[in-house]
Amino acid sequence: MQTPSTLLADTLNRITPVARPRIEQAQQHLDSLTKPPGSLGRLEEVAARIAAMHPEGKPQIRKRGVFLFAADHGVVVEQVSAYPQEVTAQMVLNFLQGGAAINVLARHAGAEVTVIDMGVNHNFDRQLPLLHKKITKGTGNLRRGPAMTREQAEAALTVGVELATQAQRDGIDLIGTGDMGIGNTTASAAILSVLSGHAPEAITGHGTGIDAATRRHKVAVIEDALRLHQLDPTDPIDVLAKVGGFEIAGIAGLILGAAAQALPVVIDGVVSIAAATVAYQLKPDVVDYLFASHNSTEPACRAGFQILGQEPLLDLQMRLGEGTGAILAMNLIEAAVKIYSEMATFDTAGVSRKQLP
Amino acid sequence: MQTPSTLLADTLNRITPVARPRIEQAQQHLDSLTKPPGSLGRLEEVAARIAAMHPEGKPQIRKRGVFLFAADHGVVVEQVSAYPQEVTAQMVLNFLQGGAAINVLARHAGAEVTVIDMGVNHNFDRQLPLLHKKITKGTGNLRRGPAMTREQAEAALTVGVELATQAQRDGIDLIGTGDMGIGNTTASAAILSVLSGHAPEAITGHGTGIDAATRRHKVAVIEDALRLHQLDPTDPIDVLAKVGGFEIAGIAGLILGAAAQALPVVIDGVVSIAAATVAYQLKPDVVDYLFASHNSTEPACRAGFQILGQEPLLDLQMRLGEGTGAILAMNLIEAAVKIYSEMATFDTAGVSRKQLP
Repeated sequence: MQTPSTLLADTLNRITPVARPRIEQAQQHLDSLTKPPGSLGRLEEVAARIAAMHPEGKPQIRKRGVFLFAADHGVVVEQVSAYPQEVTAQMVLNFLQGGAAINVLARHAGAEVTVIDMGVNHNFDRQLPLLHKKITKGTGNLRRGPAMTREQAEAALTVGVELATQAQRDGIDLIGTGDMGIGNTTASAAILSVLSGHAPEAITGHGTGIDAATRRHKVAVIEDALRLHQLDPTDPIDVLAKVGGFEIAGIAGLILGAAAQALPVVIDGVVSIAAATVAYQLKPDVVDYLFASHNSTEPACRAGFQILGQEPLLDLQMRLGEGTGAILAMNLIEAAVKIYSEMATFDTAGVSRKQLP
Repeated sequence: MQTPSTLLADTLNRITPVARPRIEQAQQHLDSLTKPPGSLGRLEEVAARIAAMHPEGKPQIRKRGVFLFAADHGVVVEQVSAYPQEVTAQMVLNFLQGGAAINVLARHAGAEVTVIDMGVNHNFDRQLPLLHKKITKGTGNLRRGPAMTREQAEAALTVGVELATQAQRDGIDLIGTGDMGIGNTTASAAILSVLSGHAPEAITGHGTGIDAATRRHKVAVIEDALRLHQLDPTDPIDVLAKVGGFEIAGIAGLILGAAAQALPVVIDGVVSIAAATVAYQLKPDVVDYLFASHNSTEPACRAGFQILGQEPLLDLQMRLGEGTGAILAMNLIEAAVKIYSEMATFDTAGVSRKQLP
């Protein structure tokens, strides 16, 4: 059995960039299909990158999985969220009963949803179809002290890495990330503020729907936390430990684990984006396996996209989390892969090529 | 049997706005579901509008249909397209064999594709699974004379109206529009220039991929046509006849027919947008039943969205036509409808409501 830190180091070592010549080769195939070159825009870019991850043949998405990490946040005592903490556990039960937005959208997309208790402040029945990976019952209040210890952060990252390994074994070809945790847009804005260098005021949003006064208070809470912890962006595990969350760490680990196995990962909104930037700081090559799904109304998303060098596929003014943006984009990504694998070529269909410049 | 012009007048009379109180009622239902109010952004707006079209109960998308109208354009003699005219017929055959992008994407979305020959310059085998509605073998060259007669424009509109009636009978709940016609971005830019008041230079794009010099020539061709015909934007059927296309007229008719039956219609890129603005000029209430799918790279799209007062759901830098943007958005629209009909409420799921403003 590896310790979390050696497993993590091994995982980072196994992440390599997607080969550029393979992407170019995939684009050549796309240009042979019966459409003007480039006319499918971003679908082509997505298809080429995924095809390049499948050097052995035509890419195919046989199985899609959304991993929904749930945890609670000590910072909720500061009254930063519109909803009470108990909603985290209540929503976990809603996910297990299939009544939440992510369940509806995952059924629509033919994807499986795996719910992981990373640190919810509730004792779930052990019989529930839930992955019981609780680190502890919620983080500490980041305004007054560290959210978690470094060991807890590494343990939570490891849960994600191991889930990616299991996903690969289960034949999942496309992974989506999701989150549930009252208070987690505060933690995400704190992480993204440190890693992007943008002030909390510029990137803190309205979360689940707080008003302007509560948002100003939320900004002050994050400012206090950043003053207290004096974080170093080059030590992302420390940033994660001091102002992060267990679900954020789990998602970061899943992203690293997926990239280590050349599995594409579709990231959801601001919480997943914060996790992705932590993964990026640990190993920049991870971005080759990432697909930004949507631009949420949380301003921290933009800061995250800048770090990752990615543009989201969707902008539907969503701000729910759970993986709802990711699953919608997974459907587009699957469509792109089918374009690559199923369209006729100019030659086979007997269609004339371009005559004018 | 009604004449085209009386059928058209009847159809326009049957189009009524979607009742605003029904939309508000639908939004109230959305606010009772287990998510922060408004957090699904544009999906909620889509769901509320479609729910309001189904006053008798929960909305459902049981059957999706894409109607792909094909026709040729006399203006191709002016060398405005990168591809030769024969590609229209070749692509129709490709559609029938299932090898084109729209076929792949429609299979992915579980939608049926109906291909309509509105005026392709080719004699298709009558046995082919194609709707044979050819008005004539392509329009006249709009630079030198009218593209078609007013009677031909009305006949083509009627084909679309009748297809919408048939779609309703066939149980289709969501309609997508698509086009195929070498030269049809020239006709679409001409229509949109007249109806929006923007100069051809500002809204003419690169179509299937012409270079800057060919685009300048295309602009000059459109300018010549507008000088020749001196069109009146308040007579949209005349605009359609003088500078339009048979597939554009077919799409406009389909939109009108769908709206007359309160069926939602998802419009594709610039060619469908040109058709939608013609439909709008004939009856502005039609917009209540329209969903703009995507912003293509053709600059005329923006002018069209302004007329229609709509924002597209997607912006993937696509420019293929065929209904490829529409079908991707139809998937999002279906997801939105399922959110409305399948999610748990706060009460049934036992989830606490908002506590802070």
